[in-house]
Amino acid sequence: MFDVIIVGLGCAGYTAAIYSARYKLKTLLVGLDEGGLGNTAAEVGNWPGEIEIRGPDLMEKFKKHAVSFEEVTHKQARVDKIVKEKDVFTVTFQSGETVQGKTIILATGSNKRHLGVPGEDRLSGKGVTYCATCDAFFYRNKTVAVIGGGDSAVEGAAIAAQVAKKVYLIHRRGEFRAEPYWVDRVKAKDNISFVLNTNVVEILGDPKVSGIKLDKPFEGSDTLAVDGVFIEIGANPATALAIALGCEVDAKGYLKVNGAQQSTVAGVFGAGDVTNASNYFAQFATAAGEGSTAANSAFNYLSTVPVQGGSMSGGF
Amino acid sequence: MFDVIIVGLGCAGYTAAIYSARYKLKTLLVGLDEGGLGNTAAEVGNWPGEIEIRGPDLMEKFKKHAVSFEEVTHKQARVDKIVKEKDVFTVTFQSGETVQGKTIILATGSNKRHLGVPGEDRLSGKGVTYCATCDAFFYRNKTVAVIGGGDSAVEGAAIAAQVAKKVYLIHRRGEFRAEPYWVDRVKAKDNISFVLNTNVVEILGDPKVSGIKLDKPFEGSDTLAVDGVFIEIGANPATALAIALGCEVDAKGYLKVNGAQQSTVAGVFGAGDVTNASNYFAQFATAAGEGSTAANSAFNYLSTVPVQGGSMSGGF
Repeated sequence: MFDVIIVGLGCAGYTAAIYSARYKLKTLLVGLDEGGLGNTAAEVGNWPGEIEIRGPDLMEKFKKHAVSFEEVTHKQARVDKIVKEKDVFTVTFQSGETVQGKTIILATGSNKRHLGVPGEDRLSGKGVTYCATCDAFFYRNKTVAVIGGGDSAVEGAAIAAQVAKKVYLIHRRGEFRAEPYWVDRVKAKDNISFVLNTNVVEILGDPKVSGIKLDKPFEGSDTLAVDGVFIEIGANPATALAIALGCEVDAKGYLKVNGAQQSTVAGVFGAGDVTNASNYFAQFATAAGEGSTAANSAFNYLSTVPVQGGSMSGGF
Repeated sequence: MFDVIIVGLGCAGYTAAIYSARYKLKTLLVGLDEGGLGNTAAEVGNWPGEIEIRGPDLMEKFKKHAVSFEEVTHKQARVDKIVKEKDVFTVTFQSGETVQGKTIILATGSNKRHLGVPGEDRLSGKGVTYCATCDAFFYRNKTVAVIGGGDSAVEGAAIAAQVAKKVYLIHRRGEFRAEPYWVDRVKAKDNISFVLNTNVVEILGDPKVSGIKLDKPFEGSDTLAVDGVFIEIGANPATALAIALGCEVDAKGYLKVNGAQQSTVAGVFGAGDVTNASNYFAQFATAAGEGSTAANSAFNYLSTVPVQGGSMSGGF
């Protein structure tokens, strides 16, 4: 029986494991994608203390730290199901194998939505990116396209406009879902052009992004020369396990947690991009913070709740 | 006029500056104690990616990162006053000099309460520590004393008992302020001895902690041989500037912030130990997460609120 089972091999999961191990809790750290979304970051410039580091290198440092503790069992496997019975959680892997634990930390992340156009996958990390906040800084005095119509796209365009020479904000509809007031402010920026009612049909370039192809001409041409493409059309938080466990999700579909990273199911905690914490600001730093808090809360829960046959002290 | 003035030179302040700079905001990073509380950590083992690093070395890495951006002005000075007038903040230093900014991030930290007994300051960092969660791990199979009667002391004793051979939980009163249920669980641990109605009058050892002296005998002796002393008698969040600005504090005295790290005063954000965020779990990881979120919120505020003479869009 594990004290803590952490699902997810990204920034939040690794950090939760480091803390859990330091509390001497018997910990299983399990997931399918080693490094999580952090692994897809070509360059990271906002992890405090590292002026510039490759995403996979940063995640490797996290992993090494987490598995340096004898308390941590690391397993690469897909979790298919988690069931709670009498304060004990049973986790079933794709192989059919099961393990049991007294607490669960869900750090399953989120999947950025893709456009699904030619060139997108091939140029991912070579100018195609899914996080303007993370990557805009690498496009100083360049020309970039931001694609989408929600808050993250409009905020992404605003951030990109701070550093880039020129920003195209491309949206398939004529109106934005983002707050109107915000859109007005972005419209006031000299270096942002709005390309509305337009779809991107291909991303061009070899070996890196050099342009995009549109489904109708903009200012006389159906291709735009750009150095970077920020695709900000939303994310799907990976909440399938959480929902099956009975955890509430919020209106946007994210796992609901309180300030202690507790979900609405006793003994289940959440950390990182899957949650609604940190104002949905999905960063290495916020994921690490949430992972540490989740492990602390799991430790507190284990210190106060008798697991076998005892009554719940009511954590939520 | 600065876009952002960050008060506090610790983990939260440095991280906020890194993010603020990446948003191309003209940033002042100012405070008196370079490195903050992080500088007092002899060994840090829970900053993800660094298996073991000295506190001052970690803070130096953060500082170097923050000041690597041309957008960041770094200033070591004491801030005496912050006043808000028509959406503009005026910050007055001890020297009398003033600067102005459009937003404020308060990352002023907290001061751990000291016992004020002989040996305490001399042995600080040499066995005397103020954060059991941070440091217990370095006392595997050792004997330690935890001093205090609130949640942090009792939780500290529980954490220490996971790794240490023997823990003395020493409290000047006969009853704990911590939750009774929690206290019961800690009482069940074999390796914790309760030393109640007892004061520590001196901390002994040279060059590092070797024992403590009590004001009455325990099991026949008024000295206890210990390798470490965790003083957990509370912290005073440094909220003087916040309160003078009109920001609300919570019942425990911490700066109240929402999930976006906004205080109750528009344009003022908080991050790190001074706030009630992250369930009061004051760690490098949580301070960094909060610092990044605070800078993001300041950027959003600046994108949507016209600063001079405009109407507020209502952030809170």
